[in-house]
Amino acid sequence: METHPPLDLSAGQGMVEDVLDRFFERAKARAAKLGPSYLSLWQTLEDSTAGGKRVRPRILLTAYLNLGGTDTAAAAGVGAAFELLHTALIVHDDVIDLDFTRRGQENVSGVYRDLASSAGAETGAARHRGLSAGVIAGDLALTGAFRLLDRSPVSPETRLRLAEILDDAVFASAGGELIDVDFSFHPGAPPIDEILHMERLKTAVYSFEAPLQAGAVLAGAPDEVVSTLGLYGRDIGIAYQVVDDLLGVFGSETATGKSTFSDLREGKRTVLISYASDKPEWAELSDLIGSPSLTARGAARARELLVSSGARDHARELVREYADRARQRLDCPAVTPGLRAALSAVVDDAVNRGR
Amino acid sequence: METHPPLDLSAGQGMVEDVLDRFFERAKARAAKLGPSYLSLWQTLEDSTAGGKRVRPRILLTAYLNLGGTDTAAAAGVGAAFELLHTALIVHDDVIDLDFTRRGQENVSGVYRDLASSAGAETGAARHRGLSAGVIAGDLALTGAFRLLDRSPVSPETRLRLAEILDDAVFASAGGELIDVDFSFHPGAPPIDEILHMERLKTAVYSFEAPLQAGAVLAGAPDEVVSTLGLYGRDIGIAYQVVDDLLGVFGSETATGKSTFSDLREGKRTVLISYASDKPEWAELSDLIGSPSLTARGAARARELLVSSGARDHARELVREYADRARQRLDCPAVTPGLRAALSAVVDDAVNRGR
Repeated sequence: METHPPLDLSAGQGMVEDVLDRFFERAKARAAKLGPSYLSLWQTLEDSTAGGKRVRPRILLTAYLNLGGTDTAAAAGVGAAFELLHTALIVHDDVIDLDFTRRGQENVSGVYRDLASSAGAETGAARHRGLSAGVIAGDLALTGAFRLLDRSPVSPETRLRLAEILDDAVFASAGGELIDVDFSFHPGAPPIDEILHMERLKTAVYSFEAPLQAGAVLAGAPDEVVSTLGLYGRDIGIAYQVVDDLLGVFGSETATGKSTFSDLREGKRTVLISYASDKPEWAELSDLIGSPSLTARGAARARELLVSSGARDHARELVREYADRARQRLDCPAVTPGLRAALSAVVDDAVNRGR
Repeated sequence: METHPPLDLSAGQGMVEDVLDRFFERAKARAAKLGPSYLSLWQTLEDSTAGGKRVRPRILLTAYLNLGGTDTAAAAGVGAAFELLHTALIVHDDVIDLDFTRRGQENVSGVYRDLASSAGAETGAARHRGLSAGVIAGDLALTGAFRLLDRSPVSPETRLRLAEILDDAVFASAGGELIDVDFSFHPGAPPIDEILHMERLKTAVYSFEAPLQAGAVLAGAPDEVVSTLGLYGRDIGIAYQVVDDLLGVFGSETATGKSTFSDLREGKRTVLISYASDKPEWAELSDLIGSPSLTARGAARARELLVSSGARDHARELVREYADRARQRLDCPAVTPGLRAALSAVVDDAVNRGR
């Protein structure tokens, strides 16, 4: 079988950074006129977007360039819009989860909580101020995503289709976020299919389905390709989320930048927990997880129980299943060998993270 | 001087309701497919927009029709977008203020807090769930505003200008919200001009400046008219906010639907408080306000002090000043007599509310 050297995305990725830089420069210049504290909020928001892996722009560029798209600037602009959407959603997700750090660093709410504390506010007030700043910053990033789409050099018809894709992504994420909040209020663990449904809505749609479809639309690909990439994105996105669940418990912190404690400590509803919830191990496991006082020893025991109950193996099997299904989606004439090769690489990345 | 019978806005206002109804019908149909709880959130969001005075669509229609605009459907669509923007901003403002009611009724967060309570959640968890639902609902309304703009029958060039006006409004409101949050962390009261600056950004821009400019742009008015209406909107918007400050303390609850306690109880920084803060009355006043235990008797005494310190008279003078300035803005050839008459009526409404 002939090989397909992957297209070079670096030019496009550099343009994404330029678009984001220009966006924040403009916003900071306008904010400075309204007040120094507003400028700081924008600076904090920009800092929180820096150093990201730009997964969504990369996926969009991969689809666009491999479908023969040549206007890299346009694709970079839309990719940057998806990056801002990602920022908006995680900033508000952290507000909802009362998280003040992300990947080991203070997030927007964390920065403002600390500022308030240093200014002498007591804990509750400082946290509230941090969360308030998070609500405002997320709104700005969300609006910014649509702004960047408007600034991208695309035709009115294409812009409208892309705006619908962006809007559908927000619609899905908000639904997933709500269902996730609902879960935390239900005793026991929801069935695996409900967890997969939530994870797909909350993250897979805006992270995979939507950027892939946007790249295809932007490249002027036929509807068949757009919908095929959407289905591929759904499956690979779900595989990605289950890998996330695995890494949240079994991953190495160095590889993920995420504590392998936090998921267990907050008793996060994952496919692992759902699978274990009707196994004999559940009695002991349910006492360990979801407790702020969970020790390293307790976490180690929880991992043992997730292994012995077969939860880890089942999750790994789910990853294989959805990754295979994703690959099969690409097995159609509408998808060129080059695109298939490029997206298969995305599959492998998704599945082999943190190993 | 010839009289100008006001144009009938009822047809346009009816269309605004139709646009909003269709928007929520579509959204609820899509949400139902994702889950019953998501459908309920959309229903709650729709309920929270019902019964509003539709101030912003009315202002937009007033400018549009009096500038000779004839495509009422387009103006209604854009007006509905401003109404959803208003919903988004107040839902998130309530989240930030930890308010669970608005105008005497449960807001989105209040409805979800009560649902959680009835489901057995303890107070803190129920409040957190309510606020989480508020964050999500506000994001949906904010995205919906841009969605409604996209669905309005306007040319791509006009849509882009309107999107910029909408974006600028979000930008200003977010800045005002942040400054307002800052105020609550500063001891004492900020100077009056800083309070007016905050109130202008937080509310006047998206409620007056932006809808007026949008109506003018939509009507194809010359830039001079667009900017004149913007300046008019700024002044009348500030007058409106100062009236709000007065009503928050001296208004009758029946007329405003708002407790004349809450502002005093939360020690809200208003022009009244700012004016009084360097008067002899401040020593006694500052002990009364900002305390959850403020009694009817204490509130009555606080009102007396705001009167004797001259704060109420000064605020009333500010209203007159900004209302006059607003009227003078209209005194230019670019503004037709009909438009001037219609907008003067808006001035009177703004100034005479709750009397």
